[in-house]
Amino acid sequence: MKRSPLLNNYRVIRQRTESLCEPLCVEDCVIQSMPDVSPPKWHLGHTSWFFERVILEGFVPGHKPFHESYSFIFNSYYQSFGDRVRRDIRGTLSRPTVKEVYAYRRSVDERMLAFLENTDEATFAKVGPLVELGLHHEQQHQELLVTDVKHIFGCNPLRPLYVTDRRQQPVRSNVTARFVPVAGGLHEVGAAAEGFAWDNERPRHTAFLTDFWLMNRPVSCGEYLEFLNDGGYRNPLLWLSDGWEAVCREGWEAPLYWEHTDGRWLQFTLSGMRPVSKDEPISHVSFYEAAAYARWAGKRLPTEFEWEVAAATAGGATQGSLLEDERFHPVPAVAASDAADRFHQLIGAVWEWTNSAYLPYPGYQQERGPLGEYNGKFMSNQMVLRGGSCATPRSHIRPTYRNFFPCEKRWQFTGIRLAADNC
Amino acid sequence: MKRSPLLNNYRVIRQRTESLCEPLCVEDCVIQSMPDVSPPKWHLGHTSWFFERVILEGFVPGHKPFHESYSFIFNSYYQSFGDRVRRDIRGTLSRPTVKEVYAYRRSVDERMLAFLENTDEATFAKVGPLVELGLHHEQQHQELLVTDVKHIFGCNPLRPLYVTDRRQQPVRSNVTARFVPVAGGLHEVGAAAEGFAWDNERPRHTAFLTDFWLMNRPVSCGEYLEFLNDGGYRNPLLWLSDGWEAVCREGWEAPLYWEHTDGRWLQFTLSGMRPVSKDEPISHVSFYEAAAYARWAGKRLPTEFEWEVAAATAGGATQGSLLEDERFHPVPAVAASDAADRFHQLIGAVWEWTNSAYLPYPGYQQERGPLGEYNGKFMSNQMVLRGGSCATPRSHIRPTYRNFFPCEKRWQFTGIRLAADNC
Amino acid sequence: MKRSPLLNNYRVIRQRTESLCEPLCVEDCVIQSMPDVSPPKWHLGHTSWFFERVILEGFVPGHKPFHESYSFIFNSYYQSFGDRVRRDIRGTLSRPTVKEVYAYRRSVDERMLAFLENTDEATFAKVGPLVELGLHHEQQHQELLVTDVKHIFGCNPLRPLYVTDRRQQPVRSNVTARFVPVAGGLHEVGAAAEGFAWDNERPRHTAFLTDFWLMNRPVSCGEYLEFLNDGGYRNPLLWLSDGWEAVCREGWEAPLYWEHTDGRWLQFTLSGMRPVSKDEPISHVSFYEAAAYARWAGKRLPTEFEWEVAAATAGGATQGSLLEDERFHPVPAVAASDAADRFHQLIGAVWEWTNSAYLPYPGYQQERGPLGEYNGKFMSNQMVLRGGSCATPRSHIRPTYRNFFPCEKRWQFTGIRLAADNC
Amino acid sequence: MKRSPLLNNYRVIRQRTESLCEPLCVEDCVIQSMPDVSPPKWHLGHTSWFFERVILEGFVPGHKPFHESYSFIFNSYYQSFGDRVRRDIRGTLSRPTVKEVYAYRRSVDERMLAFLENTDEATFAKVGPLVELGLHHEQQHQELLVTDVKHIFGCNPLRPLYVTDRRQQPVRSNVTARFVPVAGGLHEVGAAAEGFAWDNERPRHTAFLTDFWLMNRPVSCGEYLEFLNDGGYRNPLLWLSDGWEAVCREGWEAPLYWEHTDGRWLQFTLSGMRPVSKDEPISHVSFYEAAAYARWAGKRLPTEFEWEVAAATAGGATQGSLLEDERFHPVPAVAASDAADRFHQLIGAVWEWTNSAYLPYPGYQQERGPLGEYNGKFMSNQMVLRGGSCATPRSHIRPTYRNFFPCEKRWQFTGIRLAADNC
Repeated sequence: MKRSPLLNNYRVIRQRTESLCEPLCVEDCVIQSMPDVSPPKWHLGHTSWFFERVILEGFVPGHKPFHESYSFIFNSYYQSFGDRVRRDIRGTLSRPTVKEVYAYRRSVDERMLAFLENTDEATFAKVGPLVELGLHHEQQHQELLVTDVKHIFGCNPLRPLYVTDRRQQPVRSNVTARFVPVAGGLHEVGAAAEGFAWDNERPRHTAFLTDFWLMNRPVSCGEYLEFLNDGGYRNPLLWLSDGWEAVCREGWEAPLYWEHTDGRWLQFTLSGMRPVSKDEPISHVSFYEAAAYARWAGKRLPTEFEWEVAAATAGGATQGSLLEDERFHPVPAVAASDAADRFHQLIGAVWEWTNSAYLPYPGYQQERGPLGEYNGKFMSNQMVLRGGSCATPRSHIRPTYRNFFPCEKRWQFTGIRLAADNC
Repeated sequence: MKRSPLLNNYRVIRQRTESLCEPLCVEDCVIQSMPDVSPPKWHLGHTSWFFERVILEGFVPGHKPFHESYSFIFNSYYQSFGDRVRRDIRGTLSRPTVKEVYAYRRSVDERMLAFLENTDEATFAKVGPLVELGLHHEQQHQELLVTDVKHIFGCNPLRPLYVTDRRQQPVRSNVTARFVPVAGGLHEVGAAAEGFAWDNERPRHTAFLTDFWLMNRPVSCGEYLEFLNDGGYRNPLLWLSDGWEAVCREGWEAPLYWEHTDGRWLQFTLSGMRPVSKDEPISHVSFYEAAAYARWAGKRLPTEFEWEVAAATAGGATQGSLLEDERFHPVPAVAASDAADRFHQLIGAVWEWTNSAYLPYPGYQQERGPLGEYNGKFMSNQMVLRGGSCATPRSHIRPTYRNFFPCEKRWQFTGIRLAADNC
Repeated sequence: MKRSPLLNNYRVIRQRTESLCEPLCVEDCVIQSMPDVSPPKWHLGHTSWFFERVILEGFVPGHKPFHESYSFIFNSYYQSFGDRVRRDIRGTLSRPTVKEVYAYRRSVDERMLAFLENTDEATFAKVGPLVELGLHHEQQHQELLVTDVKHIFGCNPLRPLYVTDRRQQPVRSNVTARFVPVAGGLHEVGAAAEGFAWDNERPRHTAFLTDFWLMNRPVSCGEYLEFLNDGGYRNPLLWLSDGWEAVCREGWEAPLYWEHTDGRWLQFTLSGMRPVSKDEPISHVSFYEAAAYARWAGKRLPTEFEWEVAAATAGGATQGSLLEDERFHPVPAVAASDAADRFHQLIGAVWEWTNSAYLPYPGYQQERGPLGEYNGKFMSNQMVLRGGSCATPRSHIRPTYRNFFPCEKRWQFTGIRLAADNC
Repeated sequence: MKRSPLLNNYRVIRQRTESLCEPLCVEDCVIQSMPDVSPPKWHLGHTSWFFERVILEGFVPGHKPFHESYSFIFNSYYQSFGDRVRRDIRGTLSRPTVKEVYAYRRSVDERMLAFLENTDEATFAKVGPLVELGLHHEQQHQELLVTDVKHIFGCNPLRPLYVTDRRQQPVRSNVTARFVPVAGGLHEVGAAAEGFAWDNERPRHTAFLTDFWLMNRPVSCGEYLEFLNDGGYRNPLLWLSDGWEAVCREGWEAPLYWEHTDGRWLQFTLSGMRPVSKDEPISHVSFYEAAAYARWAGKRLPTEFEWEVAAATAGGATQGSLLEDERFHPVPAVAASDAADRFHQLIGAVWEWTNSAYLPYPGYQQERGPLGEYNGKFMSNQMVLRGGSCATPRSHIRPTYRNFFPCEKRWQFTGIRLAADNC
């Protein structure tokens, strides 16, 4: 790992987090609109806390914490790092103020940069990978920042704007829905040993797949509306048992952020209320909705390995929008070529629910110590999502990336791509 | 009602609300630390909303609302005024911003003052009493502001300061606890027909009381500590059944804001953490704790009429501190004379739990319309408190005043004064 | 107290409890259809436990408990008697079996009778009043048995019959609704010192009342239907705030046990499903419904002292049905004379909600020891009901009797009688 | 499928269900000690309901239901069969009585046997497989009956006995814990097309496994005690995140049914309280406990395919006890030969948690119609268990059998067998 590009990445990524907060008022930074959401100032603080606890405390002799209480206030879930504020009451803390949190960022950044510039090569060799991990951690929180702000604004009767997107929004897709055959057999899946990847993507290993078909693009809002209009939300036979319970308990009648007004469907976006656009990828659906839609359509969701194998063979796939595109919303697939074997928007646009539970790969070793808590301890009751969304930083996503959420969560940009055994 | 003093009151009271918010950061104004607490900016907006809906909309021809959504956002519980944000999620709204709420106040004040100065006498005669009511409403919210801020800060691990009280805190009381006999018989209770009072204080009516004794001052922290140290919180036989359930469910071991550290009791105050001072009135206890203490002491709580009759005959009573004293904490009773028939701190210091349920007086008429919702609909499952506290404005409290809270609430400055059938 | 009538009472009352269980299958005796309900076999055991713990253990030298675990299993809420099975899971205990519980009753009865017959006069003088109290305790559980069985059967889709009442059910009332004036002033209320009464009915004391009017009979189903058909359950302005919350949370649209089928209202009774009969007293309403009805009717509920004073002056009042009538349902008021100053069904038919909170009388002393837990510790968050119901034993009820339940409870035979300040 | 053996199976299996209920009192048959448990009489009725709805209603012309409400009362979760009693309140129904449920069984059995004996070959060919499925369904409920009765008795302070097992309980195991290597590569897994299997075991398909090691017998109580005594229940770093939350929320300190008394661990069994025996397989642990134990031991849980491949190659494995052994408790592994390559108790003793989520096999087709609801709709948030337990009927279990429960459930006989990547 080279020092100069890492330093550069550090500056760029840390700055990006702050840019994402620029449209926010102080008030927006304090709010927790539901237990899954964290206040933006908590994201700002927690990502700094990560560098302070993992790098500065671990490697800088004589390091003094910026503030003795911040370890408690900004710890997320690391038992190794001691107690923490309960997740569901992060929004009850008015202090530290936003300004104080930015001062914390300044202090951490100055000390991090001074340390990274000046430390000896041997230390850097140890520290570099941890810094890289901390930057990927920060990128994850960039995505959460965007989705949490969407929820904070989406709950507010004033419907605040996050951005004013003056660019023309593509409205029509030129990509026809189609199932692309993929050959089964033995495939290597998971991240190779070199390069950055989370521990949960490793080790790379062999999996046997049956031949399958995968949809060339994500399911669109128009397609999903057919399910909805066909009574999809009222027919228990289409749903997983837990899914139907969620439908009844939560009163779901449509994806999150959809509202039926004057005979048509509107959706709340980070650029304001907009009509649901038929060619857009469907988003903000739970795993349960994805599974019910698939059953209704006579298809199924792909496994994570089917998805990964298809992505690995899809060199020329068109990407969907990513964080840097600043759409903050999935746009219809528009492709230079709509060749029959092409996949579109495997990367970007919406995270795609797979029918794979989030579990360890064969040979997975959960590290001892705090970084071992990063991924391994969440390997129950969650499903794998693949491909990144319009809120994912470009340098953060890759085909082997395993995101994971519980089946009922809807506040991420989560969508659907169907698979089939035969077509 | 005279126009000029009312206008003056309007200016002074509206300004006082803002002064109380001066020590707050923007962040503090947005937070709801528990369902009973409202964000300070909500108090700022709601008190303005009250004038807008009751006065401006009702009496100013062609009145345009400041903002179409504010009626929804700042309504508290008035079914007559339509829908509202659920009380327990007031803290999930980052917008309107604090600055926007102040602009709302500005706008309401300008329009109110212009209207009150210029309206004709006939209209003023109708409107004056409603404005006076709105100002008393605002004073209630001043008290809630102080107690809500105390809770917001008290939950924060950083323990922020609300004020720095540089005055010497009186530490010792020169008042010896004593029971004062009061003669029973027929007494008139409740507010007379003239002068401002809430509808729940009326009509003035006759009540028959048996002779009783009432403590000359509120129970002190030192006295309460004896109960605590005697295992008061561990002995179910001292408690009401619902009270013992609350002790077990909530894990109560002491009054709210008390912490046991290094062998001594500290308390969180609006001036920071301080040792519990023995001569101070006990505060932040629930009705259940008050009742258990009374049973432990072999005494009882007074009824609200006993309290009122004693107060009515206690012309020379020393007052406890009130909002304008800016102690924001009850101080020990210090009296020029500790004569045997004197009561101390009936008014001020701490609200005193009575053993009377909050119910209508004989002949009480609940108005139709929104103002009828003010008091009457809360007449179940609450107990009456009397006398005001260190957070109550001086011009707001009087001996006939009936405050009311559910038995388990502790975040107000609520204390104890004992009564007895004989001594 | 004479020994022979007490022994006779003991036999009769204990036997009555068992008669009430005769129509039940073993299965019915084990069920707890909601937390407020206790399984019938628990009532059978608990009433025996009361005699065992209070009399046999306290007064019989060398008493050996029938079973070492029964003290834990059959204790209701007496902290003085140690731990107990949590109330809401009484229905999870299949053992002891019903047969074993009857054996327990046999054993307690034999030992009680032997003891009462043979003990010396001095002991009997102490024990007699406790036995009398235990018998009144058993009568309270007789009423609960009936209402709990009604709930158990009412929840069952098979709608089992408890009794087949072959007598003609009176359908029409010859009593016209009318308000009877009652003179205020100073009145003595509460139970006199001699004779059995609960501690909460004492001491007898003076109360001052304003003149008032009280309805001559309970509100009928027909009258209540007008409220219901006028949108009473949909208008929040008629309700106490807590009451409206209960309406929304519980989805109340009618009294408990009412069902709307094919355009008419049916009610579940202990003799099966029956049409709602207009002249019957309304029953199974909560305090909230009673208060909302009164507000809708432009009247109010009486205080408990108003009720008691009216009852004390109503020598010739017609009684409603009581337990011994074996109607198990309130019947329309039918009177020999419908004189203008007559009250009907003050005693019997339905318990009448008053607007008085359940609180101690002036001079009330809660005993130390287990019997002090009987009434005093429930003096919060409950309202007083007066007059007994069709499930109350005749020898158990009297005009000074104070029953009490939380505002939202509906499974007792609870009804409404209106009061007014003037008519 | 031959008619005579099926008829025989029908008689034997239906009879077995009733034999299992013989030790129960009527009272035991009505109780639901927690939402997961069903009252025994519900099991008796539901298994009959299954035959009535699937066979009699589907195939017998002019079939009249035994009782019009039973379809509602005894439906478990079949949306296709209409409404049903909410699962968590099955224990609030005292009727139908136990006797009536047995009459229902009689009636169903008579009609089933008459129909099966007399129907023509063509119909039998269609019906036979459904009857076989119904019998396997009944066997599943036999296991649930045993575990539900254990919970019902285990909650009761009287600790009733289900059986008195007078046979000598094997106390020592002669099997030394050892890891057996299993070769990876391509394996066929899942049930072959012929013979009875659930749809979730199919289709048989190819899976690629890495070489692994699997423990030769289930983890013993003695081994688990080392984890417990090493603070296993107090160290969050050993637990999955959801698991640690369950530990804190539920207060887990040991497996279900364990009690620490006088310095030693006792366990509730269906033969009464007994000391925990070190050589017995550990049982009544959740998936979370299994996973925490594995992490503590430096090992992992096997995947379901690892388990199945090992079982497929373990021809001579000693079985653990099964339902017919009437131990109702796992016994220590005792083997004729403890050869190094031998597995013990793969079948029987305790269900073994795997680290595989319960998900469809490649090519799995969920049927339309009620039988499609049997397995497919539960394929989320559950983990696979393998091998059967001491409560599983011998003819019901096979190596491809996939049982499934949510991670936190503990009332089944669920245990642990460790796997490792290398040893």
